Amino acid sequence: MSEPATAIEAAVAASPLHQLKDELDIVIPTIRNLDFLEMWRPFLQPYHLIIVQDGDPSKTIKVPNGFDYELYNRNDINRILGPKASCISFKDSACRCFGYMVSKKKYIFTIDDDCFVAKDPSGKAINALEQHIKNLLSPSTPFFFNTLYDPFAEGADFVRGYPFSLREGVSTAVSHGLWLNIPDYDAPTQLVKPLERSTRFVDAVLTIPKGTLFPMCGMNLAFDRQLIGPAMYFGLMGEGQPIGRYDDMWAGWCIKVICDHLGLGVKTGLPYIYHSKASNPFVNLRKEYKGIYWQEDIIPFFQQVVLPKDCTTVQKCYIELAKQVKEKLGKIDPYFDKLADAMVTWIQAWDSLNPTSASFSNGKTG
Amino acid sequence: MSEPATAIEAAVAASPLHQLKDELDIVIPTIRNLDFLEMWRPFLQPYHLIIVQDGDPSKTIKVPNGFDYELYNRNDINRILGPKASCISFKDSACRCFGYMVSKKKYIFTIDDDCFVAKDPSGKAINALEQHIKNLLSPSTPFFFNTLYDPFAEGADFVRGYPFSLREGVSTAVSHGLWLNIPDYDAPTQLVKPLERSTRFVDAVLTIPKGTLFPMCGMNLAFDRQLIGPAMYFGLMGEGQPIGRYDDMWAGWCIKVICDHLGLGVKTGLPYIYHSKASNPFVNLRKEYKGIYWQEDIIPFFQQVVLPKDCTTVQKCYIELAKQVKEKLGKIDPYFDKLADAMVTWIQAWDSLNPTSASFSNGKTG
Repeated sequence: MSEPATAIEAAVAASPLHQLKDELDIVIPTIRNLDFLEMWRPFLQPYHLIIVQDGDPSKTIKVPNGFDYELYNRNDINRILGPKASCISFKDSACRCFGYMVSKKKYIFTIDDDCFVAKDPSGKAINALEQHIKNLLSPSTPFFFNTLYDPFAEGADFVRGYPFSLREGVSTAVSHGLWLNIPDYDAPTQLVKPLERSTRFVDAVLTIPKGTLFPMCGMNLAFDRQLIGPAMYFGLMGEGQPIGRYDDMWAGWCIKVICDHLGLGVKTGLPYIYHSKASNPFVNLRKEYKGIYWQEDIIPFFQQVVLPKDCTTVQKCYIELAKQVKEKLGKIDPYFDKLADAMVTWIQAWDSLNPTSASFSNGKTG
Repeated sequence: MSEPATAIEAAVAASPLHQLKDELDIVIPTIRNLDFLEMWRPFLQPYHLIIVQDGDPSKTIKVPNGFDYELYNRNDINRILGPKASCISFKDSACRCFGYMVSKKKYIFTIDDDCFVAKDPSGKAINALEQHIKNLLSPSTPFFFNTLYDPFAEGADFVRGYPFSLREGVSTAVSHGLWLNIPDYDAPTQLVKPLERSTRFVDAVLTIPKGTLFPMCGMNLAFDRQLIGPAMYFGLMGEGQPIGRYDDMWAGWCIKVICDHLGLGVKTGLPYIYHSKASNPFVNLRKEYKGIYWQEDIIPFFQQVVLPKDCTTVQKCYIELAKQVKEKLGKIDPYFDKLADAMVTWIQAWDSLNPTSASFSNGKTG
């Protein structure tokens, strides 16, 4: 890092965003010791961590000193959820969504353990969490595109021709951050372009327009649990399932159609993290190949989903979506029947751990 | 500029894009001598200029030596179009669309005479036209959002989860460039933020998703005349009309719904130009105030427009749009009746000057 850690710590502590430390949990899925947190210490140490240990529960995960955390392994998940634990994936980072469920905070930031602090073009270490919080605390503008990108960013505004009635915007539910160094490519692209590195620093945040789907990556992601948490289910992946590496994609399709329906915003762009190592493309190809095939039907399905007006909560939307998944995608493969059932189980488990949120109504329908 | 003009000239001449000089016209609306072209000389001198002189036709507009151009004043427009000249605005830069009509080239780049060469963060002069040509010659991706922005940019690609069936993209019809220094704000925003300057260099080009409208600015704009030219009508503005400064907005709404219908792409982002001076916000307020009010109805109208399947050419789409404008927007103000009639006149004038394009079918309907 270009600055001494103490200077960064002082800047972090001075930020008005620092006060969110009691309202935000950081969720990290992992199978290894969390040495990567050392680099994040100045930015993340004030926050509470929820670590979801994947794989062998008898293994001990070491967390650097000074971090405040709770850790759940598979035994904990089974104990807490009982039979409903079937909806939480095993041997896949999709297990992270258990952390969303057990959190009691308003906001979640989730990050992979191979992601490090990136630098902006001036060489300054990027406080990714601060940017996510800015994204979540400022409105989104899903109904009309602003050509200068985020109108709420410093030095920017709505341009000529932007309707004044739409400038209030809507609440932001999701902030999707990007990656420098190793781009988030699928296995075929990894195989074709093994040496490609992401070096372009695009200094922008933008709202993904209503009606447009996007590929949501779970590596560097923040969201408002109260607004969209129950839809942030990462599906059935990993052991015993026919696919992997579509956990975040599945969540992204689901949250986008539900945000569009409820009048909530989804942003993408800043902040960047530094993604250190590419996963094995051959292993990835095995995990992905059915997803690559199935997504050709899944995406048109999500593009056409209509949620009824009486779906006024995330839970109601999600249960309706599960029903439609079973009806429409069940034909593709029996996996989608199982996934639709797991979506329902997920909501039951969510509501059992979050009893007050079950009937909570989020935003407007539209 | 950081490089000597000869180095830039050598770079421009060496570019494979240079060959487009016989396929692209540069359209400039003006009321003054075109001294601003001096700064653009290394980039624009190889191209043919179409200058549309607004205001007093007896005034002589000086064009710097060495530029190849044709110039049309109001007398020329009246002579060439006869009674159909009524569709071309007077005392408003909307008159520029006459230049689109008389061009015989495949591509148009239009630029305002208060726009200069911008520099990228490294201090290098930006060849705006080269970037526009890159934008127009590479496909657009309107059906699904790519989180690393333009997948066809160097060092970028489609990310994990992007459906392979959509990676071919569609033809790009429009490239909308941005502005450093003076942002394109409406009069109220100019009044509230007189000192705000646009300094953020966002190193991205992106496709505006299907179904999403945007505020298109005519300051720094390129398009494929063969694909979308007949829809690039800048409406009735200026003398004798109740509004101004909505010429490019009108064109932007029209081209977007037609591109969406015909399966064509619209990009925004790079290149930047340097916009030198803010127009008078008090004058702008007088020109804009009805537009600011009316756009609250106009934009929902365009968001709901459906063009019938048999509208397979830009001309057919535009005539249908004129019909719907008359039906739906005529209620707001008699101005829209007049505008709808002018839209029809525009197409008649276009077809009379471009007889072979009248029945030319562009792309797919959808």
